[in-house]
Amino acid sequence: MRYFFRVEYDGTGYGGWQRQHNAPSIQAALEKAFETVTRVPCRITGAGRTDAGVHARAQGAHLDLDAKLDTRESELSVNSLLPPDIAVYHLQPADETFHARYSALSRRYRYFMCPRKRPLLFKRVWMVFYEVDWKLVEEESAVLIGTHDFSTFCATGSGTRHARCTVTRAELSNEGDLKVFTIEANRFVYTMVRSLIGTLIDIGRGHSTDSIADLLASRDRKRAGMTAPACGLVLDNVYYGGVD
Amino acid sequence: MRYFFRVEYDGTGYGGWQRQHNAPSIQAALEKAFETVTRVPCRITGAGRTDAGVHARAQGAHLDLDAKLDTRESELSVNSLLPPDIAVYHLQPADETFHARYSALSRRYRYFMCPRKRPLLFKRVWMVFYEVDWKLVEEESAVLIGTHDFSTFCATGSGTRHARCTVTRAELSNEGDLKVFTIEANRFVYTMVRSLIGTLIDIGRGHSTDSIADLLASRDRKRAGMTAPACGLVLDNVYYGGVD
Repeated sequence: MRYFFRVEYDGTGYGGWQRQHNAPSIQAALEKAFETVTRVPCRITGAGRTDAGVHARAQGAHLDLDAKLDTRESELSVNSLLPPDIAVYHLQPADETFHARYSALSRRYRYFMCPRKRPLLFKRVWMVFYEVDWKLVEEESAVLIGTHDFSTFCATGSGTRHARCTVTRAELSNEGDLKVFTIEANRFVYTMVRSLIGTLIDIGRGHSTDSIADLLASRDRKRAGMTAPACGLVLDNVYYGGVD
Repeated sequence: MRYFFRVEYDGTGYGGWQRQHNAPSIQAALEKAFETVTRVPCRITGAGRTDAGVHARAQGAHLDLDAKLDTRESELSVNSLLPPDIAVYHLQPADETFHARYSALSRRYRYFMCPRKRPLLFKRVWMVFYEVDWKLVEEESAVLIGTHDFSTFCATGSGTRHARCTVTRAELSNEGDLKVFTIEANRFVYTMVRSLIGTLIDIGRGHSTDSIADLLASRDRKRAGMTAPACGLVLDNVYYGGVD
């Protein structure tokens, strides 16, 4: 039996989604909790491998089990075992052909920025103290829509085959005094959102006269701007055709 | 010179707003930071004395100084000295007749509840796992509007002269899967919002057949329901005629 579920987490205390030797990971914490509940080894597959410090509101994941789960009961037990910064929801049986990563049609990330110190959003936003031309950032963001090679915005060492991604949404909005950048694409390459945000802010501050169009066309990693901090980034949703 | 400012804080790590002997307080942290910047003793007056664990988005406060402050510079310095869970903003000169507490025309509190474990809102919401008749909670909330004696919802030991408060807004709204209770009044008595929320949830769960109208009329503290946890409560705003 395959089971699908959503995961919400505060990534602050983790080395990222993926199981690793030298840091705690969301995947390892989930596997440990599911193993305690099911009493069998559990291997969990996620839709996206978020980086250290990156959060998720609705990561998608699946798990295969020989035994049948009481999903409602198991969800409660897993959540009691997990620390307060990780929670599972929407646990449900899924079709054997469903795959949390490969069945995902698109992913949505949101990046939160604020102009001042915000205690109620500590470790949730990037404090952008600079003077930024937000109108320019908005215009440059719109250029991202479509299919592009994002090599310029892909950190090395990711082992990705290619950097071609189809962006279906890229926009800046206001939520109170927060600036929120929302981006949806079929796939994302390593550090792509943080690299885009850092570069957009460099452009908005007048620290770079490059345009996003030129930077994309250059496919030159060295021309990207700074990488924005992980704390402002949330994997907001993973879209599947139907399962939710 | 009198100076007005706003304070945002995460109250989790504090014994409350007010300076006290046995726990860290928001007031003491602010006074220490202002004293470091101004190099003179600072006494800070707040609009409302929030309890241990209660947060604030826009607490109002004032401070008297003989010297003149560069407000922009001082605000940055004070915020650098304060821990990440407290921030000052809108620091500005105020009229001598202005008083952060007595000039406040009304206060708005918001109380956040959610039906499931929410890692991204840890220490910001009350997890209400119960089956609640929210329609009934909404109807009972509306009864609060007007001038009433809130003795039933006032914890003892507060030394308040009287419990008469004029409530101008009391409503329940949805923000995603959160339930948010917003209440505005000219004044609040000790633990009033948390006592109201706990009682409303008791009523909504069918654990109490009392009505808010009957409970108010009884003026009997023993008839109030549970006190909802502090973590869900935020002092959202303090309204003054003009200063902001």
